[in-house]
Amino acid sequence: MIDIEGANRQALGKLLKARPVLVDMGIAKDVIPGLKKNMFLHAGPPIDWGNMSGPMRGAVIAGILYEGMAKTAEEAEGLASSGKIIFEPNHHRHSVGPMAGVITPNMPVFIIENKEYGNKAFTNMMEGLGKTMRMGAYSEEVIKRLRWMKDVLYPNLEAGIREAAKEGGIDLKFIIAQALHMGDELHNRNKAGTSLFVRLLAPFMIEAADCKKEAAETIRFLDKNDIFFVNLAMAAAKASLEPAHGVEGSSLVTIMSRNGTEFGIKVSGMGDEWFTTPAAIPEVLLFPGFTKEDVNPDIGDSAIMETLGVGGFALVCAPAIVQFIGGTYQDSANYTKEMYEIVAGENNAYTIPSFNFRGTPTGIDVLKVVETGITPILDTGVACKRAGVGQVGAGIVRTPMGAYEKAAERFAQKYLG
Amino acid sequence: MIDIEGANRQALGKLLKARPVLVDMGIAKDVIPGLKKNMFLHAGPPIDWGNMSGPMRGAVIAGILYEGMAKTAEEAEGLASSGKIIFEPNHHRHSVGPMAGVITPNMPVFIIENKEYGNKAFTNMMEGLGKTMRMGAYSEEVIKRLRWMKDVLYPNLEAGIREAAKEGGIDLKFIIAQALHMGDELHNRNKAGTSLFVRLLAPFMIEAADCKKEAAETIRFLDKNDIFFVNLAMAAAKASLEPAHGVEGSSLVTIMSRNGTEFGIKVSGMGDEWFTTPAAIPEVLLFPGFTKEDVNPDIGDSAIMETLGVGGFALVCAPAIVQFIGGTYQDSANYTKEMYEIVAGENNAYTIPSFNFRGTPTGIDVLKVVETGITPILDTGVACKRAGVGQVGAGIVRTPMGAYEKAAERFAQKYLG
Repeated sequence: MIDIEGANRQALGKLLKARPVLVDMGIAKDVIPGLKKNMFLHAGPPIDWGNMSGPMRGAVIAGILYEGMAKTAEEAEGLASSGKIIFEPNHHRHSVGPMAGVITPNMPVFIIENKEYGNKAFTNMMEGLGKTMRMGAYSEEVIKRLRWMKDVLYPNLEAGIREAAKEGGIDLKFIIAQALHMGDELHNRNKAGTSLFVRLLAPFMIEAADCKKEAAETIRFLDKNDIFFVNLAMAAAKASLEPAHGVEGSSLVTIMSRNGTEFGIKVSGMGDEWFTTPAAIPEVLLFPGFTKEDVNPDIGDSAIMETLGVGGFALVCAPAIVQFIGGTYQDSANYTKEMYEIVAGENNAYTIPSFNFRGTPTGIDVLKVVETGITPILDTGVACKRAGVGQVGAGIVRTPMGAYEKAAERFAQKYLG
Repeated sequence: MIDIEGANRQALGKLLKARPVLVDMGIAKDVIPGLKKNMFLHAGPPIDWGNMSGPMRGAVIAGILYEGMAKTAEEAEGLASSGKIIFEPNHHRHSVGPMAGVITPNMPVFIIENKEYGNKAFTNMMEGLGKTMRMGAYSEEVIKRLRWMKDVLYPNLEAGIREAAKEGGIDLKFIIAQALHMGDELHNRNKAGTSLFVRLLAPFMIEAADCKKEAAETIRFLDKNDIFFVNLAMAAAKASLEPAHGVEGSSLVTIMSRNGTEFGIKVSGMGDEWFTTPAAIPEVLLFPGFTKEDVNPDIGDSAIMETLGVGGFALVCAPAIVQFIGGTYQDSANYTKEMYEIVAGENNAYTIPSFNFRGTPTGIDVLKVVETGITPILDTGVACKRAGVGQVGAGIVRTPMGAYEKAAERFAQKYLG
């Protein structure tokens, strides 16, 4: 008889021992293993062009324009549907990206190393708010910003990160732990994480920068972009979770992700199999001018934050997020309390001040999800379902049971006969 | 019959309308009105050398050594007791300083302007932890750091602040409001305030700095000094509270302060009179190697934070502080709830996430304090009672009733016949 509890303890132990550190940057095609010249990475489980939702298609169009593979959106759409571009999930390449999560070959990426196990994870840079590629916009301002990010933001950040790496790199576990005590839950709110990142990185960047003006411009971009840290938090989560995958007999979830059409999970003891189901529609506070009809199904690799045990699982750390959609502090506390029902344990590094520094609920157990009927919640940004538009709001989403049921059934077949 | 409630509404209204902005720096003797060459400012109500506690004496010795008025501590002590130095409260010169709060003529100070009323307030720069002048230490490392602060930290900060002033200055009310949502209560915990200050100031400082290395060194000092922002928060509070003083018939407290021997308050409708009583002994978590016998009575102008309606009054925003002395989140919530009993209103800018963004208790009413028997709490750093030693811990202190009773009695004489 397989010792599921013991396997889950082992997987959770690996997750808790993780030490994710920001060590370098590079161009995607040079640093992400196996990323081919004509390959675009995207959020969520596998999907082809025909099944992609509006924002995912919009982001692919933006990526093609950014890469200079087409001159117009129409041309880009033709190329995307031609079969000449290979689409692959970020998660197949140790990567993550928020919302559409499209990473193209010539996009700069952060490199995060899990110092405990030596594995690496990758993510792109956060564009900020307004019209953005990750939300499916592809207008000129979007492409222009992506180019500025490559030409100015990237070299300045990279120079600072390389200076910092000489002293061991930037400890993302430390930043996440501190940020949870500073009003962030690290998914929709990253104001503290971004602040701590700036104060740690700025001196290194100044020492490294050839051009003072660009160092100032870089910090100002981060200062105006409270959500900047989320990509780093996501890659820290990805680097932390990978070693916990592949533990024989473990029913812990190591990936939750959405491509805007489907929600999918992977389970530690179930190898490479994705368990998918149609993506849910978030409960959303809409920006002015949008209606419920505009809301795209849930999208993005950012659910890796809840898989790590923060984000919606630490919602009580950031009650502002619930207030934003009309809830109270108590609602945010209730969401977090509920998540303790479906996890294998509590985090030893990530803790909740108003729960007397109790560890966040960590290590989603697919068997407990099915047994209790409680599915993980996420708090997330929300995209317009039409390509080219962008963000319509932010809100809370309950992940759909279908994926957990499929996983639990297959788990039972494999381990319980 | 005097309308006390109306007068208190008026005083509170002035306090709530304040807009404290960091606009400049300068050398104390050049910018603080009336600061003479042989004058040392100090925390709390008036006190002469003979009645000063150990840490206050130690800070005066440090100040004399820093000014180059003596070569040894013994020589400095002789000068201090000779009557040749005039000691005056910071509060008599629109100034505040943490702990001993000694400001000497050649010390750099921040200049904060209340943009609503045009009044200015001043404060010195935070030295950080370890052996410091403000805690009464005067060893060579203390004096050396003070000189480095004048030679390196000051010009770099000043250059950045002057750049920022061209765009309206650094809005301290905004930083304080944000920091309360990020785990600070702005007295003993200023990690968020310091972080937000760094990310706002850094780009200006880089643009202004002649020497890149010094800009990096400056930011690194702030990064290693989570409490750095407290002086700025204190001067913001001072600038905010001064216009609320002098409202005829108002029983609101506009100053609470301690000189390490006495605790003193001023009341809006009671002119320049100090109401004093012996300072309390804080309930303290002691650093290793110290005993209760080492604890100096409560000291510092930092009680201006509670006078503003944050610090101990917003303790629930920073439960880490209570945990530090063995308390729980609920204890911190109870402290804050209790303070609503003795104030005229709630803050409209400073709010508490876990109380559903209720305003902090603001505007201490000396009549309510006496009527309820509840005195304001502070959370504070604690100094060793011997000169030259430094900090022994941090803790909670209940301010002593004597000062409020005296004030209420005199208030009744003046206004109620």
